[in-house]
Amino acid sequence: MAVYTEVNETELAAFLADYDLGHVLALKGIAEGVENSNFLLHVEAGYFILTLYEKRVDEKDLPFFLGLMEHLAGHGLNCPQPVHNRHGTALGRIAGRPAAIVTFLEGMWHPRPSVRRCAAVGEALGKLHRSGADFAGCRSNALGIEAWPALFEEARARVGEVRPSLGEEIEKELAFLKGNWPRHLPRGVIHADLFPDNVLFVGDELSGLIDFYFACVDALAYDVAICVNAWCFEPDGSFNISKGLAFFSAYEGVRKLNGSEIEALPVLLRGAALRFTLTRLVDWLNVPADALVHPKDPLEYFRKLCFHQKIASTRELGLLR
Amino acid sequence: MAVYTEVNETELAAFLADYDLGHVLALKGIAEGVENSNFLLHVEAGYFILTLYEKRVDEKDLPFFLGLMEHLAGHGLNCPQPVHNRHGTALGRIAGRPAAIVTFLEGMWHPRPSVRRCAAVGEALGKLHRSGADFAGCRSNALGIEAWPALFEEARARVGEVRPSLGEEIEKELAFLKGNWPRHLPRGVIHADLFPDNVLFVGDELSGLIDFYFACVDALAYDVAICVNAWCFEPDGSFNISKGLAFFSAYEGVRKLNGSEIEALPVLLRGAALRFTLTRLVDWLNVPADALVHPKDPLEYFRKLCFHQKIASTRELGLLR
Repeated sequence: MAVYTEVNETELAAFLADYDLGHVLALKGIAEGVENSNFLLHVEAGYFILTLYEKRVDEKDLPFFLGLMEHLAGHGLNCPQPVHNRHGTALGRIAGRPAAIVTFLEGMWHPRPSVRRCAAVGEALGKLHRSGADFAGCRSNALGIEAWPALFEEARARVGEVRPSLGEEIEKELAFLKGNWPRHLPRGVIHADLFPDNVLFVGDELSGLIDFYFACVDALAYDVAICVNAWCFEPDGSFNISKGLAFFSAYEGVRKLNGSEIEALPVLLRGAALRFTLTRLVDWLNVPADALVHPKDPLEYFRKLCFHQKIASTRELGLLR
Repeated sequence: MAVYTEVNETELAAFLADYDLGHVLALKGIAEGVENSNFLLHVEAGYFILTLYEKRVDEKDLPFFLGLMEHLAGHGLNCPQPVHNRHGTALGRIAGRPAAIVTFLEGMWHPRPSVRRCAAVGEALGKLHRSGADFAGCRSNALGIEAWPALFEEARARVGEVRPSLGEEIEKELAFLKGNWPRHLPRGVIHADLFPDNVLFVGDELSGLIDFYFACVDALAYDVAICVNAWCFEPDGSFNISKGLAFFSAYEGVRKLNGSEIEALPVLLRGAALRFTLTRLVDWLNVPADALVHPKDPLEYFRKLCFHQKIASTRELGLLR
């Protein structure tokens, strides 16, 4: 939620000279995206988003992200469509940083999604997985299970500040997941971060999926698990079966999960909960207590993990009709 | 540069029910304005800015600010125009905070204004002062000369961290200004914060003045002094006479300064430089060193103050033809 790099008019004019978008009418930094600098760009051709990729995004990955958005938009998914410049590429440079222009999507995100919206996102995720099947790009999951022990090391020394027993509990879970992680599930392009703030709605109509900068190739059912955790819990920590079922049925309306995926779901849900516990923990411990941007509570995801630890099968979650 | 209060759809829908603007299509927090939360609001009627007034803005002052913008826009000045709701007022409440919708102005601000743009802002300031003359509202300058000693007290204990001798130098300047401040200059509505980030341009055309949340009634020539300091110095600290003259001539093309105002200008310029030295100093000392939002350098304005201390008359500044 910040603009890290300011853009001046000379740099912007030089950048836009490569595009057929007309003159700049307005540029406003927008408070979205924790990793990159985003601007609403109004040019004669309309409204667009200009993104400057900051240091936490690996420049080598940008062709994957931009290529994927283009591929998915070409398959009819509502997602930002990268705009090509006159050299035929969507990736340029501005203010010393890699940058791209994508189409502006209408819609608002909603922190407390309704059952109906959970269904809409289930359907959209199914379409994303189906449309991604013939995408040629490849990027491994930099925040997948192999990365979790190293993430934990970043937090280990001070993890007790958050909750005294948390370090031990995480260690135990890491060991459990290492021994029980499903290795042979159907793989493909996953969004990997499809939280409510990355899904836009106009009314109850899903108008767009955004922020593909964690997308990678991994188990498709792991993406389902990330979404169930992000969409189907209430603020008080309870699991909302109606939302879970709505999400799950809508997803399966587009892409059926196979038997191994359904069986693996409880473990995937634990993994997905641990992954966000760990990244939030690292952010939490590395941001000064009096900073203006408050990191998200790592214990929210730890509580989801504890919930899933008590679940033995997908049927218990009420996800199967 | 932040969004302090998030707005959810229920609150937004309830708020917009009082307006004839149609349904919400998009709402994006924008990284502008250090005092309030600002959103780009796209509704069926078009693009607008939704502002939620945060705690640093006194709610009692809002009718003055909104009334002034409306008055100035009615006189043809390019500034945000508050949108009335069905109850005939521009001020409502959302998410527990006072809020208003104003028109969206095209344009970008420019950190290094050209001579031509300095002239454009001089003309616009003249028009603002002329148009404000028959505005009935009244608000005293909460950051005027009477407030400076108290501002300094907030910083006194740690001012030496910024520069060892700074405390003494400021005390001397406070004493000088108290003894030499001009008390009988023409007064009226001033913007009081017309820095480059509050002036928008499309190309070289001035498209709007924004952020009227420091506006008040004070000496008009003090507003001129604030602008000369903000627009006519180069990043290396030198005073650019061409910019000064361009600004000043354009201002006088709309509103002539009288003899007392011209005579008082060197003192007003010192006062304007001290005012921003003091507020930046307080911000500087009160923001953690590792915060994500970096406060502005107070010494930038202290150096301008030192420059003006050596100037005995307006003629020496090269502002008079």
